[in-house]
Amino acid sequence: MKLMVINPNTTRSMTDTVVEAARKVARPDTMIIGGTPSSGVPSVESHYEEVYGALGVIDQVRKGEEQGIQGYVVACFGDTGVPAARELANGPVVGMTEAALMTAALIAHRFTIVTLPRRTIAHSERVVQALGLSHRCTVRAVDVPVADLEGGSAHLAGIFAEQVRADDEALILGCAGLTDLVAPLTARLGRPVIDGVTAAIPLVEGLIAQGLTASRVNTWRHP
Amino acid sequence: MKLMVINPNTTRSMTDTVVEAARKVARPDTMIIGGTPSSGVPSVESHYEEVYGALGVIDQVRKGEEQGIQGYVVACFGDTGVPAARELANGPVVGMTEAALMTAALIAHRFTIVTLPRRTIAHSERVVQALGLSHRCTVRAVDVPVADLEGGSAHLAGIFAEQVRADDEALILGCAGLTDLVAPLTARLGRPVIDGVTAAIPLVEGLIAQGLTASRVNTWRHP
Amino acid sequence: MKLMVINPNTTRSMTDTVVEAARKVARPDTMIIGGTPSSGVPSVESHYEEVYGALGVIDQVRKGEEQGIQGYVVACFGDTGVPAARELANGPVVGMTEAALMTAALIAHRFTIVTLPRRTIAHSERVVQALGLSHRCTVRAVDVPVADLEGGSAHLAGIFAEQVRADDEALILGCAGLTDLVAPLTARLGRPVIDGVTAAIPLVEGLIAQGLTASRVNTWRHP
Amino acid sequence: MKLMVINPNTTRSMTDTVVEAARKVARPDTMIIGGTPSSGVPSVESHYEEVYGALGVIDQVRKGEEQGIQGYVVACFGDTGVPAARELANGPVVGMTEAALMTAALIAHRFTIVTLPRRTIAHSERVVQALGLSHRCTVRAVDVPVADLEGGSAHLAGIFAEQVRADDEALILGCAGLTDLVAPLTARLGRPVIDGVTAAIPLVEGLIAQGLTASRVNTWRHP
Amino acid sequence: MKLMVINPNTTRSMTDTVVEAARKVARPDTMIIGGTPSSGVPSVESHYEEVYGALGVIDQVRKGEEQGIQGYVVACFGDTGVPAARELANGPVVGMTEAALMTAALIAHRFTIVTLPRRTIAHSERVVQALGLSHRCTVRAVDVPVADLEGGSAHLAGIFAEQVRADDEALILGCAGLTDLVAPLTARLGRPVIDGVTAAIPLVEGLIAQGLTASRVNTWRHP
Amino acid sequence: MKLMVINPNTTRSMTDTVVEAARKVARPDTMIIGGTPSSGVPSVESHYEEVYGALGVIDQVRKGEEQGIQGYVVACFGDTGVPAARELANGPVVGMTEAALMTAALIAHRFTIVTLPRRTIAHSERVVQALGLSHRCTVRAVDVPVADLEGGSAHLAGIFAEQVRADDEALILGCAGLTDLVAPLTARLGRPVIDGVTAAIPLVEGLIAQGLTASRVNTWRHP
Repeated sequence: MKLMVINPNTTRSMTDTVVEAARKVARPDTMIIGGTPSSGVPSVESHYEEVYGALGVIDQVRKGEEQGIQGYVVACFGDTGVPAARELANGPVVGMTEAALMTAALIAHRFTIVTLPRRTIAHSERVVQALGLSHRCTVRAVDVPVADLEGGSAHLAGIFAEQVRADDEALILGCAGLTDLVAPLTARLGRPVIDGVTAAIPLVEGLIAQGLTASRVNTWRHP
Repeated sequence: MKLMVINPNTTRSMTDTVVEAARKVARPDTMIIGGTPSSGVPSVESHYEEVYGALGVIDQVRKGEEQGIQGYVVACFGDTGVPAARELANGPVVGMTEAALMTAALIAHRFTIVTLPRRTIAHSERVVQALGLSHRCTVRAVDVPVADLEGGSAHLAGIFAEQVRADDEALILGCAGLTDLVAPLTARLGRPVIDGVTAAIPLVEGLIAQGLTASRVNTWRHP
Repeated sequence: MKLMVINPNTTRSMTDTVVEAARKVARPDTMIIGGTPSSGVPSVESHYEEVYGALGVIDQVRKGEEQGIQGYVVACFGDTGVPAARELANGPVVGMTEAALMTAALIAHRFTIVTLPRRTIAHSERVVQALGLSHRCTVRAVDVPVADLEGGSAHLAGIFAEQVRADDEALILGCAGLTDLVAPLTARLGRPVIDGVTAAIPLVEGLIAQGLTASRVNTWRHP
Repeated sequence: MKLMVINPNTTRSMTDTVVEAARKVARPDTMIIGGTPSSGVPSVESHYEEVYGALGVIDQVRKGEEQGIQGYVVACFGDTGVPAARELANGPVVGMTEAALMTAALIAHRFTIVTLPRRTIAHSERVVQALGLSHRCTVRAVDVPVADLEGGSAHLAGIFAEQVRADDEALILGCAGLTDLVAPLTARLGRPVIDGVTAAIPLVEGLIAQGLTASRVNTWRHP
Repeated sequence: MKLMVINPNTTRSMTDTVVEAARKVARPDTMIIGGTPSSGVPSVESHYEEVYGALGVIDQVRKGEEQGIQGYVVACFGDTGVPAARELANGPVVGMTEAALMTAALIAHRFTIVTLPRRTIAHSERVVQALGLSHRCTVRAVDVPVADLEGGSAHLAGIFAEQVRADDEALILGCAGLTDLVAPLTARLGRPVIDGVTAAIPLVEGLIAQGLTASRVNTWRHP
Repeated sequence: MKLMVINPNTTRSMTDTVVEAARKVARPDTMIIGGTPSSGVPSVESHYEEVYGALGVIDQVRKGEEQGIQGYVVACFGDTGVPAARELANGPVVGMTEAALMTAALIAHRFTIVTLPRRTIAHSERVVQALGLSHRCTVRAVDVPVADLEGGSAHLAGIFAEQVRADDEALILGCAGLTDLVAPLTARLGRPVIDGVTAAIPLVEGLIAQGLTASRVNTWRHP
């Protein structure tokens, strides 16, 4: 299978990080391509930036369709651009947030998203509510700007761990590019830690294996 | 990977059908084993039968753990025994109902479960509510006993199709053993048709690929 | 009236305690019989143990039907086996959790269940959600094993009291066998304290007085 | 026990009907007194009339407290005046709507209120939502004025029966004074039919037997 | 336009305060009249007092209709009497609580009501739930009696400010007569502070400008 | 006051229509300016087109800020771009969908949005759910493309009227540019008919009169 992981912002190092994370769980015969918009915003931390992020997603899906991409992962917490991408793409599209939430729901009764800037809590909650998981998922923030991720995220392990409480059965990392936190936090917290990009890959692969893509009845018809 | 698909009832032909369905979407290196309880009930169509079904699931997980099974799918609509299995198994456990619902949510905004006996509508709704998807999923029934599935389900295509309405963007088959309805109904209805056992396989494979299993914090601790 | 209070676990001292509690509020002409499964688990503190608890409930209802029992109370927090018992019994079946919740809703706008092991919070929440009372009821745990109840529960008054907060208008004791906590905690906390077994007796008596039992339309038809 | 059934409107024949219904299920040692306001409205079919109904309830509770009444039932669908009565009375107060809903939830998974004037659907829904039962209860109306009940309700059996659908597992009569519909409709529909006043009596008796009344913490403190 | 601001209690100084607040935001051509019931209760702090408050509202609307009032604001947190007033009045009726909540929802994703006596939290929550805003609005109390407002509310700024937390994006003052807290609290807290009476005026004016009043289909038909 | 009504699509005739509608209810001293993006999409009928619509909104707000605009109305059903606009603008921003819903909730207990293409039902539901009004609002579609509005909407009165049912207490027109349907449909249906742009004007004017704009705490901070 030929998949594209779309980073909706223009930061190429972020794309490299998420592609690397995706490859670790992909089937041996899956090819993962990264997509980075040539213009837009360096990170998506507001509703304003989400509009540019969504535009970047559309742009990459258009390119992907020309290249025969069979499925897409949108690597931005909040899943900006996912509905538009679903309408545009022929193959399935999965957002990292919805993928993380579904994965968490299979292994934990209650779980928590820890996101970066406090202002993006509402972005996470939007996806939690669209899936109906408000009764099982809480959203908190470490309140650090996304720019702090340049050069890796390992230095953030401590402030993430501080957000975890006794009744958090699993932890979702609320931003793309945090994969290198999964192993140390899992060890430290003694409970599952989920990266949404990693979680999304088997979901897209599974949809393709089942021959499934977005329904063209009503909501996600081609535009 | 070595997975077990557990049929909670004692009908071996049903086990064969679901194992066959599972193999079609599994990764090439995945081995699928069927599990059938030696005692219990021939089908699960009531809360009373669900207790025996859950007991059968526990029984098979015990055997599976001895055989080195790495992950389980419970092939009974309503996901009877799934929480108990999660507590008992070391690897991940996925119910066919939750798998079907998550898969549907990725490809359709609104979707519908069509189950067999009308009395099991509440069993499906229990899973829909546990996942929080009541705002996107409706449950209907063709009101046919499960025994009608002996010898295949192709003759049911017509009564399933009758249940589908204009705003159903995807259809979930509300019983195990209906895989041979997927292709004809997809063609007839022009919208995705989902079989939960098929949907569950990539979810279990994906959890194993990520090194994830049920959290041992609180709810699903080992008993 | 001839009622059975079913203890789903095999601990006979627990059965004695709940039968004694039930008799205190029963009508003068009501006969209360205790039911204890001869095999199963000594306490129900996990989903795995709930399956054996439900089996014990079924077993006792079968015996009760032979003895002309007119109504049943299931004395296990989480109401394991209640739907199966409803399908099997001719008379009404009431779980101690649903009884406690309905009773609380009549005398308090907001109320709290305090259960024993933290892992059973999800069992309580399942009943709270089935009744739709999440907006009025919180669940907390003292995180003590059920085995601590041998020899009575009076020594637990302190840790229960610690869980109560200013906006808890009433307290529900989240386990069978805690009746001797009702009087001391009511005095100490200055607010109603509810034992579910005690609460269930007038509900069953009332259903019998009205000639009501489980509807045989759809969900709880005889199996 | 000494209970008062309060009819919030000034129609004495309605009071007689509900007192008679109440007596049929009361314990042998329970004394039932009817309460009718001397001024107010002849029936409660609007929010405007509910204010006068609530005033009538307050008036009767004041009298009841002087007479040593130990518990109250408010016999008006929509439970007008119940919160005020709870604050005022020393003993427990139960509304006929909440009583009917709790009773239905114990014997049916899905149930339906059939009320009289269409404009009062919102009054019923207010109680359904306060209890959180919207996922299990539907409200419909026969759209007949309450005045049609003078001289009994037996002639309404037909239009009530027309409102019942295949998935209604039980029926709640959405007005006081419909007790004589219970037996014929139960026979005709083959499913439980519930009268709220009848349902409320064992609930009040049970609260008194448990020594419970409205919590004086926060919401229902004495005024 | 000719509007009446109804104070449901008998405290005339409160009426003066709310009329003054209303005039500050009204259109230049809007005439604001205050309405105070001649009998009833000096403040509305319980469900019992709400019944008398509602009666006062009805009384004032009757007078207003004779005087040609075109629209009404009910100046009592909890919106007592608003549905009755809607049925009675020919012009639109807006409660200060619903007005405050709608205003908050337009300028803040999450917001908090801070009300006075702790026992009235349930009154605020009733309006929050009727509008469906529980996922965005929290209710807290300073637990001060309404009588403390005589002579103004400026001395309460400190205890209101103490209730505000980092994720409260806006604050709703949970009582009529707190207008003089708006400016100092806005400055102190650096976030919007909303007075419901002030918020209601443009809503009523807007309904009148659009020629809209309560629908006479079903729920709010004239009584 | 100086307000801008932003049409997120490039169809200038639509802008003219909505500006005209807005002027009819605006205060005499309010100046209404129309905003039309110079590039983008001719109508917004998909999630894909919503991204371009949002971009158009951002573009117009930027221009508006330079021109001293004090408040904005976004004239597109589904409220595309509203959160981004709130972050960008100094004055308040109101979407026509949220305005219509709030207005409906003040005059009707249950109401219905009738939108144009069936595929946009999900766009309306997104706003309904963000406000929490799912229990009071239904969404239906006439399934006509937006292009049918060129030359006015009066010819659509019939198919809109067909969608209205007995329990719809008010009707919301689910698209911008339908103002000329308000009067004929109100007369024909005998219940309030609401145009969201018209409804939004007094809301923006009211926020400005109160000195209120989007909170800069968390969610809608400036980007």
